[in-house]
Amino acid sequence: MGNFVCHLEAAIDGTVLPADCIQTMHRERPLWVRYDLAKVGEAVHPTDFAGRPKVLWRYQELLPVPDQDAVVSLGEGMTPLLAARKLGEALGLAEFWIKDESTLPTGSFKSRGMAMAVSMAKHFGLTRLAAPTAGNAGGALAAYGARAGMEVYIFMPVDTPGTIQRECVEAGAKVYLVDGLITDCGRIVREGRDTMGWFDMATLKEPYRIEGKKTMGLELAEQLGWRLPDVILYPTGGGTGLIGMWKAFNELRELGWLQRGTMPRMISVQSDGCAPIARAFEAGERFAEPWESPNTKAWGIRVPGAVGDFMILDAVRESEGLAVAVPDDEIEPVMNEASEMEGISICPETAACIVAARRLLEDGRLSADERVVLFNTASALKYAEAEPLDLPCLPADAKMGDFPL
Amino acid sequence: MGNFVCHLEAAIDGTVLPADCIQTMHRERPLWVRYDLAKVGEAVHPTDFAGRPKVLWRYQELLPVPDQDAVVSLGEGMTPLLAARKLGEALGLAEFWIKDESTLPTGSFKSRGMAMAVSMAKHFGLTRLAAPTAGNAGGALAAYGARAGMEVYIFMPVDTPGTIQRECVEAGAKVYLVDGLITDCGRIVREGRDTMGWFDMATLKEPYRIEGKKTMGLELAEQLGWRLPDVILYPTGGGTGLIGMWKAFNELRELGWLQRGTMPRMISVQSDGCAPIARAFEAGERFAEPWESPNTKAWGIRVPGAVGDFMILDAVRESEGLAVAVPDDEIEPVMNEASEMEGISICPETAACIVAARRLLEDGRLSADERVVLFNTASALKYAEAEPLDLPCLPADAKMGDFPL
Repeated sequence: MGNFVCHLEAAIDGTVLPADCIQTMHRERPLWVRYDLAKVGEAVHPTDFAGRPKVLWRYQELLPVPDQDAVVSLGEGMTPLLAARKLGEALGLAEFWIKDESTLPTGSFKSRGMAMAVSMAKHFGLTRLAAPTAGNAGGALAAYGARAGMEVYIFMPVDTPGTIQRECVEAGAKVYLVDGLITDCGRIVREGRDTMGWFDMATLKEPYRIEGKKTMGLELAEQLGWRLPDVILYPTGGGTGLIGMWKAFNELRELGWLQRGTMPRMISVQSDGCAPIARAFEAGERFAEPWESPNTKAWGIRVPGAVGDFMILDAVRESEGLAVAVPDDEIEPVMNEASEMEGISICPETAACIVAARRLLEDGRLSADERVVLFNTASALKYAEAEPLDLPCLPADAKMGDFPL
Repeated sequence: MGNFVCHLEAAIDGTVLPADCIQTMHRERPLWVRYDLAKVGEAVHPTDFAGRPKVLWRYQELLPVPDQDAVVSLGEGMTPLLAARKLGEALGLAEFWIKDESTLPTGSFKSRGMAMAVSMAKHFGLTRLAAPTAGNAGGALAAYGARAGMEVYIFMPVDTPGTIQRECVEAGAKVYLVDGLITDCGRIVREGRDTMGWFDMATLKEPYRIEGKKTMGLELAEQLGWRLPDVILYPTGGGTGLIGMWKAFNELRELGWLQRGTMPRMISVQSDGCAPIARAFEAGERFAEPWESPNTKAWGIRVPGAVGDFMILDAVRESEGLAVAVPDDEIEPVMNEASEMEGISICPETAACIVAARRLLEDGRLSADERVVLFNTASALKYAEAEPLDLPCLPADAKMGDFPL
């Protein structure tokens, strides 16, 4: 594999950090992975990709894993980009595409980030990973951790869908329910870093999940012949996907690989039951205050506070996009309608984006002739309420030592 | 698309039937699709495939759909072929691969057959499809039917996993539970052909699902550089997958595309709770008596009688393979072990094949130096017991007119 990483860069202040050792955050804020793009451009040309295997590792020159031996793979990548004609027509959009991430291993887009982060963890010799999760990230971490032969600890809110609980358990992870929010789960993981030797795989707390998510943008560009769409609607929880895609598009632009100059408008979509980013966007803020009582049926975006808030908001604004919140009670009906119309197992987070498209078309902030792409971030199957398992359940204020590990 | 189909052929007696009209069975037995392989060989070369999209439609010259407009697609195909090193080592196999079909749309291998059969239904102008299902076929039919804008009726045993019930409902199919077996469901669909105008999409009752399943074999061949493995272990319910793969291998051999002469031994795997094919194989029979009280946790292979029994048994014998039954109570523990070991969400039917591999290695019918492939036919997620839905439930002896449609 080529390795064109030159350094890491603190997103908050541009501080340069070395990439050849374990890094987490800087000033409690995330890091960017930076590449020598001039060298990447010399080493590879867009036409080279067609002949490579149909996995996200085809973009190896733009990825951080320095050696093939470290790659932990379940065959992830190159998800289908499906024309959603009936749904587009119903919405009044001439060109509407859905990139179906439900066909990734573990049935969600989280595989991309975890494939990359677990591979880098393997490269650095880490063997004990932990993460808080609102759902799909846990399933993906459990699977890639198992594939790598690592120990995985997962903390999830007690009301996480049963199917996802089961998925983590079946992949051999040690799973704990927490009678609280994902932020409570995150606190427990932070507290266990020292005592338990956990490496914290939470969203944006290590630099490599962004690089995995970036491949959504790289694949989309390749699938559209290196011409980006006009608009991307994207559900925003922790924000890694949106941040990663915007990073990908900028790298492609800098490489000179894009066939037209315009970049897509990035539209961050949240539910009105948990909309810290949309609120900060409206208020013109760069940082988002935590949402007080998060409540939405779209589990994946029930994230009250994001450590990468400013990175999301910067990307949205740079792209001349928007951050919007949709009424939570419109999500479920649209999910069912859209699934029936297209035969795609649409998840609630994606349904939120369809609601947003409809509303933005109505108020004129989206126009009928714009080429719009959205991502089906997971299979709706993953939200089926499977029979509860008899998992240990911790109080929200659980402390290390209060419970058996 | 090229269309190289020359005719259909009755599997039971070789009767030739035209392919340019709707066909179902002949003498209540399935039909083969036959191609002009000489012309296929002139039109395409194995090296051509590398440059084509990574979907099963890449093999268009060996598929029956005559025009692009009829293709109903959710982006299916080219599933990952994953080395299962840890599991292989634990079993004592030097080379062990799992082709992970759980990454197909709707999370199972059934997408392949349904993509093809629904496309052909569209080609012939059919708009109202019905099928009995033990599970995953229903989910796939519902999704592809929705994609094609068709009406879909699905009948499933009352104890079909809740997740699969939900999947069919969410894709807009009309779903009925039946307090009986898949054979009872099949009878209801047969009886509704005339009164309801249903086209019967049951396993092997129309000619094209085999052609879709055939692509498992075509992909495997291409992924292994046109060298087939020594042994394929395959879970057998209705048998379409095994029959389809064996057909694919024979077509490839006739085309002269295989890089070595030996064909794989096809090993049909059932549970001792429902083993009609294994019993007929042992007894040297070509036809299998229905299994009396089918009972297995591997839902997908709980098929007491298969209309293609002789096609399965012929393929197994021609390949110098085996048909075996494994103890049902060994399936679940192995499923969990294997998932933890490889990070792949192993389904019970695949776990049955792993049990078979272990037992055949023990008794010497499989040897440690054979290159073995098995298929993870679905994601284990699909078997999570989701909350029951309030679906209509019919008695096993339900008659047309007894229940609202």
